[in-house]
Amino acid sequence: MVTMEKIVSLCKRRGFIAPSSEIYGGFESCYDYGFLGALLKNNIKQNWWKTMTQYRDDIVGVDASILMSPKVWQASGHLTAGFADPLVECINCHKRFRKDHLKDKDRCPDCGHEPLGKERKFNLMMKTFIGPVEDEAAVTYLRGETCQGIYMNYQFMRDAMRMKVPFGIAQIGKAFRNEITPRYFIFKTREFEQMEMQYFVEPDEKEKKKLFDYWKKERMKWYLGLGVKKENLRFREHQKDELAHYAKKAVDIEYKFPWGWDEIEGIHDRGDWDLSNHSKHSGQDLSYFDEQTKNKFIPHIIETSAGADRAVLTFLVEAYDEVKGGRTETTESKKESEVVLRLNKELAPIKVTILPLVKNKKDLVKKAKEVYGLLKFHWMCQYDEVGSIGRRYRRGDEIAVPFVITIDFDSLKNDDVTVRDRDTMKQERIKIKELVDYLREKLGE
Amino acid sequence: MVTMEKIVSLCKRRGFIAPSSEIYGGFESCYDYGFLGALLKNNIKQNWWKTMTQYRDDIVGVDASILMSPKVWQASGHLTAGFADPLVECINCHKRFRKDHLKDKDRCPDCGHEPLGKERKFNLMMKTFIGPVEDEAAVTYLRGETCQGIYMNYQFMRDAMRMKVPFGIAQIGKAFRNEITPRYFIFKTREFEQMEMQYFVEPDEKEKKKLFDYWKKERMKWYLGLGVKKENLRFREHQKDELAHYAKKAVDIEYKFPWGWDEIEGIHDRGDWDLSNHSKHSGQDLSYFDEQTKNKFIPHIIETSAGADRAVLTFLVEAYDEVKGGRTETTESKKESEVVLRLNKELAPIKVTILPLVKNKKDLVKKAKEVYGLLKFHWMCQYDEVGSIGRRYRRGDEIAVPFVITIDFDSLKNDDVTVRDRDTMKQERIKIKELVDYLREKLGE
Repeated sequence: MVTMEKIVSLCKRRGFIAPSSEIYGGFESCYDYGFLGALLKNNIKQNWWKTMTQYRDDIVGVDASILMSPKVWQASGHLTAGFADPLVECINCHKRFRKDHLKDKDRCPDCGHEPLGKERKFNLMMKTFIGPVEDEAAVTYLRGETCQGIYMNYQFMRDAMRMKVPFGIAQIGKAFRNEITPRYFIFKTREFEQMEMQYFVEPDEKEKKKLFDYWKKERMKWYLGLGVKKENLRFREHQKDELAHYAKKAVDIEYKFPWGWDEIEGIHDRGDWDLSNHSKHSGQDLSYFDEQTKNKFIPHIIETSAGADRAVLTFLVEAYDEVKGGRTETTESKKESEVVLRLNKELAPIKVTILPLVKNKKDLVKKAKEVYGLLKFHWMCQYDEVGSIGRRYRRGDEIAVPFVITIDFDSLKNDDVTVRDRDTMKQERIKIKELVDYLREKLGE
Repeated sequence: MVTMEKIVSLCKRRGFIAPSSEIYGGFESCYDYGFLGALLKNNIKQNWWKTMTQYRDDIVGVDASILMSPKVWQASGHLTAGFADPLVECINCHKRFRKDHLKDKDRCPDCGHEPLGKERKFNLMMKTFIGPVEDEAAVTYLRGETCQGIYMNYQFMRDAMRMKVPFGIAQIGKAFRNEITPRYFIFKTREFEQMEMQYFVEPDEKEKKKLFDYWKKERMKWYLGLGVKKENLRFREHQKDELAHYAKKAVDIEYKFPWGWDEIEGIHDRGDWDLSNHSKHSGQDLSYFDEQTKNKFIPHIIETSAGADRAVLTFLVEAYDEVKGGRTETTESKKESEVVLRLNKELAPIKVTILPLVKNKKDLVKKAKEVYGLLKFHWMCQYDEVGSIGRRYRRGDEIAVPFVITIDFDSLKNDDVTVRDRDTMKQERIKIKELVDYLREKLGE
């Protein structure tokens, strides 16, 4: 069974993810992506970006700066109570908790003391200073959500890209929140990456075309399409008293993590909150004039807000598989269990491993390196000559490599290779000159 | 002739780049990338990442967090004088300048007053606070350079990815510096993105194999290979008294911008400064043991440090071309000049525009949308039906679209289209079913 311990250990051992500043003992729940983690995360982000922008006609993307005018955060309500967590400190043991997460609101979950203490509001925005001297510098904040960068570019994109409602703006980028209780590895951290899309719509059209439901389904489809099983995903609608200050309606997509169901994406009807407030605070007219209907209105916004790090964790947990007793090819592992990471091929960090059958035959090594040299200009590949074939297969399975190519003595005669599929373990004999087309098709390109 | 005004104006008008928080009057030299800018920057970053990691056997990549332990910055020397600019304030007009940029060190360049004022050191690191309550919170800094995130992952990657010297670690990511004088659009900003690679080598091998020179040439080749003309690039070696505190040797790659030659990348021999200092401060043994030679040493580091935003600006300036009197196809523009952005095809944000000859013929529109629907799963494409063909060609030329496909009445009969090349303006007739292969070849895939 998959546990967080197994995931964290695999991530460290095979170069996916490790704590930040680890030689200094780590730092405040910050994490670094190693090579395989960075490749996996890039593939996820790229797939999301293509799904949102390239494959559609109605959405463009932006990449806004992390530092923005503090006026943005005044207008959005993030500097006031709207973006603050209720913090409570036990008057006995002085441990701190988020009050809204406590089952028993008046008793300390740690030492059992009652009453617990008074609730304080704690703002989640992280402050910084811009300018040469701190006491005269401009105070601003690391963005607490990427969507504000989208609202700042609503007019720019509408005009320059000639967008007509309904249209969307997508963005991938870092956001920062001073969370009281970061937890579960990369699930909840103070620095994290969002994949957000804001869809600008005419209010009546939103209702008539059921655009909120449309986006719920589209986003659920994305996870399913990348291999997450239906039974591990569900919607959870927010109750009125849980709604964020900007939201008229909110539905989470939840994934069944080892610790239970938890949020991986939110779909929100933000109404006209954002553009109305920015219009009021900036003095700019952010309304939309429809040339055809002569209708002038402040667009409503439907937001899809996914966590890139949470997506990484979701796909890793979902892909983690242990085959008891080992898989057939490897004799040395008969008694143990083998880990196979069954990531969707498009997300797999490394697409192909190329192996010479043995490393002490010059001709085999030369041929294998030729094949590697050919394929690496198309895909992220690796060359591996260390250990038995079975061991090298296992090493690839554990990091989700979909195809392993072996160069054997017949390859020297026939210019062909064996291609082994990670999941079916079937092996096919393919001519080297047909390899690129063969893999393109298998990878769905 | 290309000027910064023309670049800035094109960027705003066509959706490449605009000031951050613009509806609030902008903010502190921060900029946002619109759709075309984000696509261009992504293509540059992806090309760099592939060149550094995928196409090579000796370099892996990482993606480290922006927030790191402050101990990292103590060890690296960034919190002391090593990372501080000399700031000087005129005692008469109170304007501030970087002293090392002044031609006349004692006279105010603005009001002419002499003497100017006393020099103060001003630290470039941006501070923030982590934790629930500011006065008890952990102080840390937004990273001032991405390479420190690489050093923190040196052991992790060496072990998990089984790297042997010489090997490199590459990273793309944001960095932040409290610059006194941000300037020239996206050239020098307080928030910026770096593409850095750190190459870990055995000290003697570094000299014997001339690895510093090797990396100078490799990096120069990258700009040349992406279409920057040789006469617009040069090396500039740092004098001893200009060297940063960590550098034994430093060479800049400079580009001839409209304001003059300026740095776009630095190649640095950092010696053992980084790993020695982190070893000392962390108490961890960061030396490398060579199994074959039984040699134990602290690797030296050769760094290649490029600015992603500077690369965007370099490629935009280099690609900007004005054709006097207009290009032959468009009658309406005979008297004006036309802008053609001659970006390398691999960097072009949008690869293909698909046009129906006219928009009021249903069959043409339907066919054009079919072709668009086919191609958009391979490349970033756009469909454009507004205005005359000449006008639509111009619109594409201005944003560097390499191929324009026109669907005309013959297309309905013969299932073929006209493909027009941005640079040669030559038109070829291609069967629709051969389009994907044809474009793959033209795009060098």
